[in-house]
Parts: sequence; structure tokens; C-alpha cells
Amino acid sequence: MPKSAFFEAVVGAPGPAQRRAIAKTITLLESTRADHRQAADALLTELLPHSGRSLRLGISGVPGVGKSTFIEALGLFLIERGHRVAVLAVDPSSSVSGGSILGDKTRMERLSMDERAYIRPSPSSGTLGGVAEKTREAMLVCEAAGYDIVIVETVGVGQSETAVAGMSDMYVLLQLPNAGDDLQAIKKGVMELADLVVINKADIDAAAATRAQAQIASSLRLLGLHHHPDHVAYDQLQWQAQVMQLSALKAEGLDRFWAAVSQFQALQQGNGRFAAKRQQQSLAWMWERIQAGLKHEFSEAPAVRAALHDTTERVLAGRLAPSTAARELLAQFFGDHHA
Amino acid sequence: MPKSAFFEAVVGAPGPAQRRAIAKTITLLESTRADHRQAADALLTELLPHSGRSLRLGISGVPGVGKSTFIEALGLFLIERGHRVAVLAVDPSSSVSGGSILGDKTRMERLSMDERAYIRPSPSSGTLGGVAEKTREAMLVCEAAGYDIVIVETVGVGQSETAVAGMSDMYVLLQLPNAGDDLQAIKKGVMELADLVVINKADIDAAAATRAQAQIASSLRLLGLHHHPDHVAYDQLQWQAQVMQLSALKAEGLDRFWAAVSQFQALQQGNGRFAAKRQQQSLAWMWERIQAGLKHEFSEAPAVRAALHDTTERVLAGRLAPSTAARELLAQFFGDHHA
Repeated sequence: MPKSAFFEAVVGAPGPAQRRAIAKTITLLESTRADHRQAADALLTELLPHSGRSLRLGISGVPGVGKSTFIEALGLFLIERGHRVAVLAVDPSSSVSGGSILGDKTRMERLSMDERAYIRPSPSSGTLGGVAEKTREAMLVCEAAGYDIVIVETVGVGQSETAVAGMSDMYVLLQLPNAGDDLQAIKKGVMELADLVVINKADIDAAAATRAQAQIASSLRLLGLHHHPDHVAYDQLQWQAQVMQLSALKAEGLDRFWAAVSQFQALQQGNGRFAAKRQQQSLAWMWERIQAGLKHEFSEAPAVRAALHDTTERVLAGRLAPSTAARELLAQFFGDHHA
Repeated sequence: MPKSAFFEAVVGAPGPAQRRAIAKTITLLESTRADHRQAADALLTELLPHSGRSLRLGISGVPGVGKSTFIEALGLFLIERGHRVAVLAVDPSSSVSGGSILGDKTRMERLSMDERAYIRPSPSSGTLGGVAEKTREAMLVCEAAGYDIVIVETVGVGQSETAVAGMSDMYVLLQLPNAGDDLQAIKKGVMELADLVVINKADIDAAAATRAQAQIASSLRLLGLHHHPDHVAYDQLQWQAQVMQLSALKAEGLDRFWAAVSQFQALQQGNGRFAAKRQQQSLAWMWERIQAGLKHEFSEAPAVRAALHDTTERVLAGRLAPSTAARELLAQFFGDHHA
């Protein structure tokens, strides 16, 4: 098979030509035209052997937590140390709002001007599954182009944190230093995804940050995610979720943050979980897309479209058991398909 | 349509004939024979208008927490107050072990001997989805027979807590009074399902139970599930997850437990969430069974069976992007079905 036009430029030397090729490749991946999709799949298969050699860092936190400031400070910190940094986003709300995060590159002005960084706003293709798929694919393209740190950001709409954790080697949750009663912004289940909780803006109120750190550490222990340092059953080979403070605005604590990330990576690579997690994520991604495709075909099938509304109404009215309804609709779908 | 032979006996007067009809109906529902399934669906549709008039209480907790003792004490407490109590179980491990919970009725000897109680072990039909479906259906049968309290128990294997929470009006998590470092048995995400956390065996160590209660309350607040009592933004119409202590063995605190359950029920019925949650659960159940059915047909299709192993290997080896793999397999499946 001849290599596609973009392939050589993407895996080639860094520079303006590579940047253009990356942008065009991602645009191709985001296209909904069937012929584009076919070309995109072929290109993706070519690029794949060149991808994967990066650390994938998922970062989320509510608006106001200082995510952009943190990512910009971290990006500049990493670039100074010889890394190439790609910043991607999963924001399922962007199809409505026209891009609520990373739509405006001036948000990370210094980082976006540096040629060792590549910043791409969230795709705006509708469903979370669709948006996440495009971001996962864009991640592979950036890796093939030699970016060795890929940061995936989410503003936390719908299930986007789970989607981002599912494409990250390490998932970081940013928090503000006002723990306890006011921390109701943490969504159900998100705390349990975190490998590392970072209390940002710790410089504003040191006492509050310290209280928040203690409270979060205690909750992580209660949730079984973090062991007490002197706990005898502590397993040295298993990563335990950590909590730390820093100030992204003052660029204070980035060295400690990066030390924790590096420790995590070394531990995971040493115990085999780094590669195993990626394989699990790949299989989960494949099955998620299969399930989404099956559901799409099912919902669009004439026999299902004809029956679904009425069946749903009967279920909601308590006249049809949900399992019976499912069996009826499946029989109609496969009857239709087998016909 | 003529009413089935079991229908009249199930919705009829309590007594030995009803008990036999319930047992036979549930056995029919659990059968994997296609003709049985058809008869079971017809019977379920007949019973459905008579179901629903119960409180569905999900209860989970790790082995050793005193689940059987708690459920038996609670069941006897409720029977004395004029209720009829059904106890069902979701235990996906029972197909392997031959029933690890509730397989042995002598476990709740006093309750199982009372004719106002009906105890049924977990179905052992393999997958969690299958086991949960049978239990959901059995719940409808018990409700049609006039049981006004249905307790669904899980031992917490796989995702069974989520399945049980998804069929309960109220989900209760039992805990031991040793919070903090030792509470690593709480699985990820389970604490966030709880409407009520019960610290059982509080009589063994009152100080530890009180510490555990404070720590769990603090974590629930951090997770945004429980507001501080004097928090100004506290929404009186929204249930906040609670933590309480009791001793099931000494039958101490059951009145407080039941008061909390009744308060929950009154609040949820008052704000409309009781009915809304059941409708959401019904739709989620229907779609869960549709997804399971689609995945089953997909995985069994000849074209998919022929390609799946090789495709999976290529994904795991990093030679095929998961999204590309999904598109290839879907094309083969629907090509196969359209052919």
C-alpha cells in the first residue's frame, strides 16, 4: 500500500511542515465523510507503529481551578527539560458552545507560541463517544510526530472524566484549597479515578490547603485508594493515589509534581501495569465503539424506529417489563436484518 | 389472551399455594428454554400491572459485615409491623460456587420459617447481566404476590453493587466499625451509590464506630453526597446520604434505621423522585438488555467469530487502532446480516 501524503510529513522532522501535516491529519480524522474516514483509517494504521512512545496525562478539574494556568506552566516546565508536549481536549459541550475549552489558543499564550508544543481544541462532533474517539486518534498522531508528553484535558461535562481517564496512563484531578462542605463540585465517581490529586492555588490560603490535603487523603484511604504511609500491609509495588499542593500561577511545586509523575511511571513500568493498562484501554475502546455502532444501527433500523416509541411508552407506563421489551425489539431488529 | 395457570395463584391469597406458584414462576423465568422464555414473558406481562407497590431496598456489604444477621433482624422487625418481606439476591459468583449467598436458607432460619417472608437464593445463570435480569423479574413476581418490602442483597462481586443499586429505590451499604486505613474493602464507586451507610456491630467498639461514622460522613461530604447539617445551601427536598450505627445482632437501632428509610421514602415520593427513578431504572434496564443482546448476536455471528481473534491480536500488538478495528468488525457483522 502506498504511504499517504501526510504520513511522511507527520513522522518527519519537527517544523512548520510537520505542524501542518498534523493539523490536516487530525482534520481528516474528524471528518464525517465516508471516503475521508476510509483514508483516515488507512493513515491511522500507517502511523500506529510510530505511536505509543509517550506519557499520556489526563487532567481535569472544575472551571476556576486554574487548569489552563497549570497546563501552561507544566508545558513550559517540560519543554525546558527537552520534552515535546501536545495538549488535547475532550469537551463534549464544545459542539454546543463552539468550544468552551481550548477553543481560544490565547488562553495558553506562551505555550501555544512555542514550536515544541502542539495545542488542539476539542473536536466538536456531538456525542461524548465521538469526541473521545477523535481525541484518542489525535493522540496517536501526536505521538507518531514525536510528542513524548500528551496532556488530555477535560472540563468535566457528562462522563468526560471517565473517558479521559480511559485514555490516560495517569489521571490527575485538580482541586481548590477549600475542602469539606464546599467541595460539592467533585462529581460522583471522579475522585476514584484519580492517581494524583493536586490542590492548586495553595499559595492563597496555606492553612486551607493543608486541611484540604488531609481531608482528601483521608477520603482516599476510606475509598481504599490510598494507604497510610506506615500501614504494614502497604504494597510497595502498587501505586497509591497521592495528594499534593502547588501553585501553578507562581510555578511553585511543578518539580514535586513531575517527580510524582515520574515515580508513578517508573512504578507502573516496573510492575508491568503501564503496558497492561494500555492494552486494557485499547480493548475497552474497541468494544465501546462496537457497542456504539451496534446501538446506532439498532436505533436507525426501520423496524426499531417504528416500534421504539410505543414500546418505551409501555415500559414507562408499567405495562411491559423492560426485559420483555428488549426481547421484542431485538427480535424485530434481527428479523429485519435477517429478512 | 387466557391468563396463565400460575397467574391466579400468584396474585391470590397468601399461603402454601401462592408460595408454590411464586417459586414455579421464578423457576420458569430462570429457564433458558425458548418456549419457557416465551411463556415467562407472557406471564410477566400479566403480572406487571399488579407489581410495583413495594419498597425496593438494596443492601450490600463485604462478607463478615453481618449482612444475613441484619437482613434477618430487619425482616422480623418488619413482619411484626404487618409487612410482607421478600429477600432476593444478586450473586454472579453463585454459578461457579453453587450459591455463595442465600443458597442455604438455614442462614436466616427464623425469617425463612415465617410464612410472611419469602427468601430466594441468587439465580445462577452466568453473567451479571443475566443474574440481575432474573432477580429484577423475580422482584416483580414477589410484588404481584403482595410483598410490600423487597430486599435485594449482594455480596459485592464484579459490578453487582451497581446492578443492585440500579434496581433499588434505596441502596444501603453496611460497614464495620473500623474506618480509615482498614476500610480498603470498599470497592471503587460503591460508596457513591449509597443512600444510607450503616455501621453494623457498633456494640463491639463504640469509640471506633463513632470515629468511623465521622470519617464516612466527612468523605460523603467531600464526595458531594452529604451536606453538613448547618450548611445554608442545604436543599431540604433532596435526600442527602446519611451514616448511622446499629447492632443487628442485638436488634438495636432497627427502629432508627427504619425511620431513616421511611423518611427517605416520604421525601422521594414528595419530590417526585421515587417514580422518576423507577422510570429511569426501567429504561436503563431495557437498554442494558438490548445492548447485551446486540453484543451477543455480534459475538456469535460467523463473520465476527472468524475475524475477532485476529483483529483483537492486532489491536493488542498496536498494529490496528481500536476505532479502525471496531469499524472493520461492524462492517463484517452488518455485511453478514444484510447478506
